[in-house]
Amino acid sequence: MNPVDIIVKKRDGGELSKEEIDFFIDGVVSGAIPDYQIAAWLMAVYFRGMTDRETTDLTLAMAASGDQLDLHDVLPGAVIVDKHSSGGVGDKTTLAVAPIAAACGLPVGKMSGRGLSFSGGTIDKLESIRGWTAEISQEHFRRQLRSIGLVIAAQTANLAPADKILYALRDVTGTVPSLPLIAASIMSKKLAAGADAIVLDVKCGRGAFMETLDDARALAQRMVAIGRLAGRKVTALITQMQQPLGLAVGNALEVKEAIATLHNAGPADFHELVETVAGEMLLIAGAAEDMNQARAAVRKVIADGSAFEKFRAFVAAQGGDASLVDHPERLPTAPVQLPVPAPVDGYVHAIDAREVGLVTVDLGGGRHKKGDPIDPAVGVVLSAKVGAKVQSGETLCTVHAATEQSATAAAKRLQAAYAIADAPMRPLEIVLDRVA
Amino acid sequence: MNPVDIIVKKRDGGELSKEEIDFFIDGVVSGAIPDYQIAAWLMAVYFRGMTDRETTDLTLAMAASGDQLDLHDVLPGAVIVDKHSSGGVGDKTTLAVAPIAAACGLPVGKMSGRGLSFSGGTIDKLESIRGWTAEISQEHFRRQLRSIGLVIAAQTANLAPADKILYALRDVTGTVPSLPLIAASIMSKKLAAGADAIVLDVKCGRGAFMETLDDARALAQRMVAIGRLAGRKVTALITQMQQPLGLAVGNALEVKEAIATLHNAGPADFHELVETVAGEMLLIAGAAEDMNQARAAVRKVIADGSAFEKFRAFVAAQGGDASLVDHPERLPTAPVQLPVPAPVDGYVHAIDAREVGLVTVDLGGGRHKKGDPIDPAVGVVLSAKVGAKVQSGETLCTVHAATEQSATAAAKRLQAAYAIADAPMRPLEIVLDRVA
Repeated sequence: MNPVDIIVKKRDGGELSKEEIDFFIDGVVSGAIPDYQIAAWLMAVYFRGMTDRETTDLTLAMAASGDQLDLHDVLPGAVIVDKHSSGGVGDKTTLAVAPIAAACGLPVGKMSGRGLSFSGGTIDKLESIRGWTAEISQEHFRRQLRSIGLVIAAQTANLAPADKILYALRDVTGTVPSLPLIAASIMSKKLAAGADAIVLDVKCGRGAFMETLDDARALAQRMVAIGRLAGRKVTALITQMQQPLGLAVGNALEVKEAIATLHNAGPADFHELVETVAGEMLLIAGAAEDMNQARAAVRKVIADGSAFEKFRAFVAAQGGDASLVDHPERLPTAPVQLPVPAPVDGYVHAIDAREVGLVTVDLGGGRHKKGDPIDPAVGVVLSAKVGAKVQSGETLCTVHAATEQSATAAAKRLQAAYAIADAPMRPLEIVLDRVA
Repeated sequence: MNPVDIIVKKRDGGELSKEEIDFFIDGVVSGAIPDYQIAAWLMAVYFRGMTDRETTDLTLAMAASGDQLDLHDVLPGAVIVDKHSSGGVGDKTTLAVAPIAAACGLPVGKMSGRGLSFSGGTIDKLESIRGWTAEISQEHFRRQLRSIGLVIAAQTANLAPADKILYALRDVTGTVPSLPLIAASIMSKKLAAGADAIVLDVKCGRGAFMETLDDARALAQRMVAIGRLAGRKVTALITQMQQPLGLAVGNALEVKEAIATLHNAGPADFHELVETVAGEMLLIAGAAEDMNQARAAVRKVIADGSAFEKFRAFVAAQGGDASLVDHPERLPTAPVQLPVPAPVDGYVHAIDAREVGLVTVDLGGGRHKKGDPIDPAVGVVLSAKVGAKVQSGETLCTVHAATEQSATAAAKRLQAAYAIADAPMRPLEIVLDRVA
């Protein structure tokens, strides 16, 4: 076998065999296949696509390219459930869902990422809790999973290294928006992290990487197919990301909203999503008979405080200051808080989620490039969402900024991110579709 | 401007501006754009193609990436005419056409290449004349062009360096067979070498890089369009390469056939091609009114020996032993000459030109990889071409080999390369089409 033949076969629309895909991914990781051949292959895949079978073989080869966690020795007989979001604006779902699932008795041992472009990252959010760290040893991971049933750690350096190489190349070669490559990238990390069952939250809309329902559905179907072919249980939800999720966007602001939700005091759309995702996790793990039962279990662990207690114990176990969980008002707070007024009377028809995400990055709440420092305090808190009736001068949202100057610049952009019109507008549904 | 945007624009089917193409090729040559981005761009061009305008801008950017010859100071007022063949088996056309054109008063200052895969190279052929060298200084080139009107030199190291980089990458990334990339590669070198007018000989068939008439015509049209947009005169001939050209394949064997042709004693198809190509050169340079006049001029310089004398002077001026031109039987001769008999009675329907080329490479007459040494004596001389009636046992061709063993292996393959059938078969036309 040689790399050029594999590139040419894909270029000409052929279906690569498992052996060819394994050979190629081995070469990617060993360095035997140079970057320029990988880049040409990625572009050929962009144009020709891959069958479900090819994508699954690619996913498995990428998962097998580095360490593969097996948590069954820690938790004999348990079904290891993971959840994954394709990324969006204001997406603090894991912060609420993981302790809820753990409180329901489902062990959650999860690896998460940092923010990318307009989309935030779970680890960045948790790091706004003083002392909390994602950098824990394998042994710590296993111990905490056994004792608390909840761990969220940074990806180990050697988790799916083939994905790291391919992702870095895709980013600079115009080959990011390829369905099989996106699906294999996500699923390879989930499989390597040892999940038996996975609930995928595929975001859809302006604030997501998949902007249309068709694209989101295609990605969801592809990932469910990979899961099935790889012998895992996978359910995918397609959820609203046309406007930001919930009200808070920004690291500490989102932690506060997640804590409020664990106290049954979160915004409706976010609460609904949390209940649905957590419910799907219970269902897929066999911990509930049907969705009604699953939702009831979720509501119970919120109502009795056990989900909140799980979150508190989890924060403390990873070095975080638990008093901040009890007193979220002590989390980092921005010195400048500037309300953004509605310029006219009317109904909110749209809030450009991507722009809200980019404003937050520019306020210092996200990264322009890898390694940039993050200001945990800054962000945006919405007061009006799509469907709301507003009057001229009424607050649409509030900017949380480090300086007056950055607040003013952000406010102008946020005002423009709101589309307000005369006709009434219905609120947006949060869950758009389900693929299983 | 940044490379990713240019890759994405082409990936999505956009037409790149001159500024974008110049920026990209500058980055290719300076090293500012890494190989993997070039590779992704090449694959995007493979899938999306380029307009004539884009291809011309690419060609001009590649031509401008290194030294650009201007021979008008050497030959004030002259039209500098070049010819180019897309490469084939037994293609010794330049060896006869260049001295004929020079004898007709058209200065020919030409850079040529070495053999590639099954296709031979003009310089390899001429090097079978003891002492002859293609490695001459610029000053030598200019002096000889003025004094003799005929020079054939190796490409200078800095001729279209962008083409060298792109070609090397295309070879290893599955992006060789792209019409705009092929056309730009050929034309960039011709433009950089200072031609005002170019006759292109696009080979078509099993022994050519373009196997079908449609592909050859598309390439011819593209190159003629580039020439027109770049302000040069270009005529393209599409010529037969289904079977080898002439009778001789192999370096010294082809030099002998070219010399015979200059003595009016060459094989009919090769003679016809030489007369046509040389005629087109006279026409395009304005040295003849019409093709009849041009052909008459060509015949005259063959008949009066002046074309042969020009060849002799050219060989001597570049260090070659002119006595070998007078006595071609003294050129390197292979120790083993093995006739290949017809296995059955019938008519020759096909001779797989590519296989004859590959057999010659395997006999030692060409290179498996860059830098391999070449045996000038070996090759194949055909006795029967397509259309010939042959009897079982009659010689189809003769292998010229270094050893009995290699001769026997070659003979077997050559016998299989001949397709012989009962039905009569017409000889193949040599010139298939003309694009101007």
